[in-house]
Amino acid sequence: MSSETFPIRNISIILVEPQMGENIGATARAMKNFAIADLRIVNPRDGWPNEKAKSMSVGAIEIIENAKIYDSVRESIEDLEYVYAASAVPRDMNVNYVLSRDLDNDMSGYKRLGIMFGRESSGLSNQEISYANKVVTIDTDVNFSSLNIAHAVAVICYEIFQKTNQRRDDLSNFPDLASHSDLDYFYDHLFSVLDKKSFFRTKDKKEHMSLKIRNLFNRIERLSKQEVQTLRGIITTLANDR
Amino acid sequence: MSSETFPIRNISIILVEPQMGENIGATARAMKNFAIADLRIVNPRDGWPNEKAKSMSVGAIEIIENAKIYDSVRESIEDLEYVYAASAVPRDMNVNYVLSRDLDNDMSGYKRLGIMFGRESSGLSNQEISYANKVVTIDTDVNFSSLNIAHAVAVICYEIFQKTNQRRDDLSNFPDLASHSDLDYFYDHLFSVLDKKSFFRTKDKKEHMSLKIRNLFNRIERLSKQEVQTLRGIITTLANDR
Repeated sequence: MSSETFPIRNISIILVEPQMGENIGATARAMKNFAIADLRIVNPRDGWPNEKAKSMSVGAIEIIENAKIYDSVRESIEDLEYVYAASAVPRDMNVNYVLSRDLDNDMSGYKRLGIMFGRESSGLSNQEISYANKVVTIDTDVNFSSLNIAHAVAVICYEIFQKTNQRRDDLSNFPDLASHSDLDYFYDHLFSVLDKKSFFRTKDKKEHMSLKIRNLFNRIERLSKQEVQTLRGIITTLANDR
Repeated sequence: MSSETFPIRNISIILVEPQMGENIGATARAMKNFAIADLRIVNPRDGWPNEKAKSMSVGAIEIIENAKIYDSVRESIEDLEYVYAASAVPRDMNVNYVLSRDLDNDMSGYKRLGIMFGRESSGLSNQEISYANKVVTIDTDVNFSSLNIAHAVAVICYEIFQKTNQRRDDLSNFPDLASHSDLDYFYDHLFSVLDKKSFFRTKDKKEHMSLKIRNLFNRIERLSKQEVQTLRGIITTLANDR
């Protein structure tokens, strides 16, 4: 189970002049999925609070309610140690780039980090980017690189979250698995019935076919004891001459 | 830079009973960002075509226009070799899981792959998941694991795209793999013979058992067409009353 608890305390998401409330709400939801809580908004176009932001946030309403509103990029990042500007477009400026894939290594060592996303229509200006320490770019098809803003936030938060040690261990509640001897009994059962019904025409063919059949069933991952019983029940039923 | 050109030909995204056109459109946009073109939709709630899907797709309108519509999950995946079901929720079924992070290794070797996403309100049913070979889960905060559907598509397509550069296809000299329709014929065959032999005592039990059996055989990795023939030969032989 996780060594981190919600939220990941040192990451802030900064939306610069977002235009649509729906996207602010969707951003909050994506942040919460990946355990990031601190949302900052610079000059939201339609003012604040925003009803559409609330309704699109679904279960992440507290992120919307706790969002901080700023008048300028500069103010919004004052307390942060290191700031990334998300951008799909190479700039004619001497800035450093990192791919989202490599964000984790890049981020390590900072206690207060921010990631800045631009407006839907035109992203971040060069001026705004000049407040960031580095540009982070999501690797996309070069011919269609403009992501929906909430998608971009989702991908970046996903990347950050994957690296925080948190792993979902609740997916691995496996049933009582079959041992190889359970499987051997199954094969014995199957092959003896097949033999009786003349499935294997020659001894050579029997060797070859039983190997193939074994290879096939052996590729079932995590076969449970109960499933082996089901398979044997199938064989018994099928072979039952009535 | 990517060595793949748009689109990544062997990946299909399947939306099962999506409710909101906006989400279908946002899904198409995310797919195009990550060079995936084949969209399939099973019973869209609001019918098809859908104007909201078109307007939300922004520059990905051709993906919407080329989307294929199906009446059932079964039909939608007939030509695919391996299908993932996206789910955030652990199921009380013996299915295999892979985290999105590990999808790339898991996928290698298949020529025709699908990833299935459920409806906004309730995801995929157990019945629908039983058509898939494996569940793919996006690692999220355990307390808030339900992603917006287009965010989930964006994250999965992002993961797939990040890895296409480095994929080594020279390791994978695989046989001619079974498609899901090959598998469906096998299940039809098996279930009809079992029915005739009164394996399923009640209708309830039939539904439950056939789901379990499907989950079991779906976990065989890289099942070839020839192996499906072998399985059908076994059924025919076993059921042969002499």
